[in-house]
Amino acid sequence: MVPSRARLRPLGTGDVRLVGGHWGEFQERNRSAVLPHVEHWVERTGWLGNFDAARAGGLPADRRGREFSDSEVYKLLEAMAWELGRAPDPELEARFHAIVARVAAAQEPDGYLNTRFGRPGQGPRWSDLEMGHELYCVGHLLQAAVARARTGHPDDPLVRVARRAADLVCAEFGPDGRAGVDGHPEVESALVELYRVTGERRYLEQAGLFVERRGHHVLDEVEFGREYFQDDVPAREAPAFRGHAVRSVYLAAGQVDLADETGDDGLLAAVVRQWRHTVSARTYLTGGMGSRHQDEAFAEDFALPPDRAYSETCAGVGSVMLAWRLLLAEGDPVYADLIERTLFNVVSTSPAADGRAFFYANTLHRRELGAVPDADEPSPRASSSLRAPWFEVSCCPTNLARTLASLAAYVATADDEGVQLHQYAGGTVEQELPGGRAVRLVVATGYPADGEVRVRVDSDDERPWTLTLRVPGWAVDGATLTVGGTTRPVGPGAVAERRSWRRGDEVVLRLPVAPRFTHPDPRIDAVRGCVAVEQGPLVLAVESVDVPGLDTVDHLRVDPSAPPRAVDGRVVVRCARVTPPEPGWPYRAAPPPVEARGFEDVPLVPYYTWANRGPSTMRVWLPVV
Amino acid sequence: MVPSRARLRPLGTGDVRLVGGHWGEFQERNRSAVLPHVEHWVERTGWLGNFDAARAGGLPADRRGREFSDSEVYKLLEAMAWELGRAPDPELEARFHAIVARVAAAQEPDGYLNTRFGRPGQGPRWSDLEMGHELYCVGHLLQAAVARARTGHPDDPLVRVARRAADLVCAEFGPDGRAGVDGHPEVESALVELYRVTGERRYLEQAGLFVERRGHHVLDEVEFGREYFQDDVPAREAPAFRGHAVRSVYLAAGQVDLADETGDDGLLAAVVRQWRHTVSARTYLTGGMGSRHQDEAFAEDFALPPDRAYSETCAGVGSVMLAWRLLLAEGDPVYADLIERTLFNVVSTSPAADGRAFFYANTLHRRELGAVPDADEPSPRASSSLRAPWFEVSCCPTNLARTLASLAAYVATADDEGVQLHQYAGGTVEQELPGGRAVRLVVATGYPADGEVRVRVDSDDERPWTLTLRVPGWAVDGATLTVGGTTRPVGPGAVAERRSWRRGDEVVLRLPVAPRFTHPDPRIDAVRGCVAVEQGPLVLAVESVDVPGLDTVDHLRVDPSAPPRAVDGRVVVRCARVTPPEPGWPYRAAPPPVEARGFEDVPLVPYYTWANRGPSTMRVWLPVV
Repeated sequence: MVPSRARLRPLGTGDVRLVGGHWGEFQERNRSAVLPHVEHWVERTGWLGNFDAARAGGLPADRRGREFSDSEVYKLLEAMAWELGRAPDPELEARFHAIVARVAAAQEPDGYLNTRFGRPGQGPRWSDLEMGHELYCVGHLLQAAVARARTGHPDDPLVRVARRAADLVCAEFGPDGRAGVDGHPEVESALVELYRVTGERRYLEQAGLFVERRGHHVLDEVEFGREYFQDDVPAREAPAFRGHAVRSVYLAAGQVDLADETGDDGLLAAVVRQWRHTVSARTYLTGGMGSRHQDEAFAEDFALPPDRAYSETCAGVGSVMLAWRLLLAEGDPVYADLIERTLFNVVSTSPAADGRAFFYANTLHRRELGAVPDADEPSPRASSSLRAPWFEVSCCPTNLARTLASLAAYVATADDEGVQLHQYAGGTVEQELPGGRAVRLVVATGYPADGEVRVRVDSDDERPWTLTLRVPGWAVDGATLTVGGTTRPVGPGAVAERRSWRRGDEVVLRLPVAPRFTHPDPRIDAVRGCVAVEQGPLVLAVESVDVPGLDTVDHLRVDPSAPPRAVDGRVVVRCARVTPPEPGWPYRAAPPPVEARGFEDVPLVPYYTWANRGPSTMRVWLPVV
Repeated sequence: MVPSRARLRPLGTGDVRLVGGHWGEFQERNRSAVLPHVEHWVERTGWLGNFDAARAGGLPADRRGREFSDSEVYKLLEAMAWELGRAPDPELEARFHAIVARVAAAQEPDGYLNTRFGRPGQGPRWSDLEMGHELYCVGHLLQAAVARARTGHPDDPLVRVARRAADLVCAEFGPDGRAGVDGHPEVESALVELYRVTGERRYLEQAGLFVERRGHHVLDEVEFGREYFQDDVPAREAPAFRGHAVRSVYLAAGQVDLADETGDDGLLAAVVRQWRHTVSARTYLTGGMGSRHQDEAFAEDFALPPDRAYSETCAGVGSVMLAWRLLLAEGDPVYADLIERTLFNVVSTSPAADGRAFFYANTLHRRELGAVPDADEPSPRASSSLRAPWFEVSCCPTNLARTLASLAAYVATADDEGVQLHQYAGGTVEQELPGGRAVRLVVATGYPADGEVRVRVDSDDERPWTLTLRVPGWAVDGATLTVGGTTRPVGPGAVAERRSWRRGDEVVLRLPVAPRFTHPDPRIDAVRGCVAVEQGPLVLAVESVDVPGLDTVDHLRVDPSAPPRAVDGRVVVRCARVTPPEPGWPYRAAPPPVEARGFEDVPLVPYYTWANRGPSTMRVWLPVV
């Protein structure tokens, strides 16, 4: 994404390389396991075959999957495109082209491309804007093409396919066309992005039409109300993100893209206000968004039950996309704080350790040992304590794949004065600043396990520039910065060092990653009387597999006077086991006596790693004694 | 219902009359407001007109409403039948006959009666047992006929219609027929009840087939899993009620009916075990059942969030039906305790004070001032803080109507030794005991506002018999019984007095109805650190309209050291108002200071009366300071 007027500029593809460590390993797992797994399942389910059937005239009889299944193929293509940009590979390139060819063959002469609508026996084109996901699918097609264009292939066949599809959208939904929008926002951001890589201004204007139309009851009412797809009130008037969480954050991302390209400060200010409200009152400790299973939606302020946290993986992806755009637009490190939190605790949580199963929803409290999901069949969305290989609605694995492949994009930015590091991962950052000042940085860190981040200058131009580091919001006490042999305390926010850097100069940021208790806002009823444990950017959790003799972690009570400690590489908290009351009517005239049996050290694990050792119960929020 | 082998016998229609007081007024409101309102809406929505369209050959083109809309007409007929039994009235009788005639005219020659299936352009009969609700609709038709038969009209045209429908069900689903069950249990209990009034044993046997088939994956998987309609495990193996709450308790009611008639002690024991588990761990303070909006279902044990309490009115009705059957079968007053709690706090809560709007879901915590529901259009199910006149799925108003019209049935029972009073309401109870001992009791009480219940003997036969009174489970301290001038303390459970009663003898039960704090089981995470206030059988609530200057009741904190008090006829609790933390990331390294501003007396209202004074926020569970 290359916005025109933002405070900060994203770096180009290839300017940041991640090597090893948490994110390097996730990227390797994405390439070696997630991508082939996703390819396997889009074939197996027939979702890719739908394009072949379209070409062969076999639709609708041979169509498989839900109305949005085309988009999974596009998200796979996007993931492959980013991955090819990260690490070219002829074999992967061949797989990419083969899929593009099958998709392209299904495109109709006028540019229309969707396997679910428009043929005899199917609904007419654009006949179900509320739930048909046609424009949503176009949006993901465009995003895949943008990824391809950004990674050195602006004239790729996929880009041509996308442009023809976008041209048709502009013709159909333009100023003189259908005054509609899609029930699932996505095409808005995609059109702005396609404008950025093609320069075709109609795409930007079409995005503007979609954004401005929405909120005026342009869609028909659905079961969950117009709030579900943000058609309840106009963008500038909404107080917070609301309705379906993924729809809401995707829309906001498109609004920021649009505001950025058009200089619409009012629209940007509205999104900023909504973001602040949402982060204050509608966001889980993990960064997860959406607490309602029924409509996969945001609930009212402070209705954040850990045991019904929906916290959809895709909402986490969308939140990262949105916060990134706001970071570029505003430059405020709080956006990078949420990106970090969400990457480590939502995006990292979805994939299994082997990269072949996924969480769709990311609960913060699992009460029961779950069944093992079927390895050979798609699973329901939020039904087990264990990750599933695929879902009937399988948006999350592909969304994860494209996010992991493009992770490097979120690490650093530049402006005319220098380079900003927002996320800490081992690797390199290169950028040419105005005036031809070539900057190269080598980052060495064991973060987040280790709080030390060493940034070494690996370039020779000694004209001054500014290196800016983010001290995370959680590092309220104890962070230090060492530059030129001098160490000073630093607090949350942006820390800038401007100087004539010489090759070999080193800046060391030391972040306090001792485990710590975290206390909730008293308005969050569902976690009253509880604490969580965090360590650096990681939310920790207790899992029953680590507590011998207990099937449920619900019988543990934490001693809040004993801070969590790191012991032999594990974090432990001091807990008592309590005996629950006898069965019977659970509401009594006096508080039932809670009998605590001694205290013991109970180990915690990073939340993102839970449920990799068989069925387990789990808690992030722990009641205190 | 007249079960054959139960411990206790229900009294006949007309044996109990309720006069004035809480329930007398509800019955009057039901007759004067709810019944005409329901009639109006089943006409207006076309759900009654569907039967006319069936006769006229206008289906499916002219069909209106969801797949179960026929059942609302049957539940209305059931309500009218009970009401005619309670208080005959030619005008109501004429309305009843007119509807029966329209229904009967739609019945096909072989007895099939459903406006949604079986015609050209509709699905074939019995083609969607999972979600089609065909047998469910038959069940409600049978229940309406049973009500008519029980109230003195065993040969009513409605009974003939029902028998023909039941005969077809037995032919289609009998031992040699389709081995299916309905996705929504209901017909099981209805068939046993029809057997009881007709003596036709095939109906009982058919109920047995339906009960035994279920749980063996006889239905296709649906989105919410087979647990949704209790087809996951056989009846005898399930540990608790689970899945869709209404389906679950309706099924259990049918199982008790069946066990009772067949002497199946194993089946009865299974239901008792499941009921005990459910009441211990899956039931709200109000008696409400079901905490998941998504599938209107029971959640895991102790997952009872007040702000997402679904607590569907129909689940309350079903729970009363079930507990009543268990009370008859087992004789244990704990079942009557739950009936009382559910009648006062779920069933009483649904209708507005004017009887023309209803809660479908009965939340225990409302966070936001809601919009006013549309007075002229059906509402979504659980979308507002205010009651709505009708719903797209409108099972609750008709279920309420039939329950209120038949309330007297739940008041008293008899056995060979005497009469048992289970619920306290002003009125009369008559019963002829074995040997021709005619018993008549006059009950005078202002219960539940007043804890004094005076039971006067109004009959002359002086042969001894036993009067048994229930001391509610909540009356743990302070209840007394006065008999023959002697007063003694009594505790929760059944209190029996056997003697030669003479006309004018009086027994006075005094129940302690001072307001009291109630504490939750520590495993209910969602209400940790909170207390509720109860008064007699009533759950109380704080409503923002009673707290000047506060839009939200979420900023109140109760002083748990100051017991609730009755002041000038209102109950008050001592509360501080707290200032919430500043907006920002809501998870902090230290608990945010909670600044309490003084203390004030905050009035509470009976929960069932809330939301009758405009949009309001409301809490049952109040955080302590």
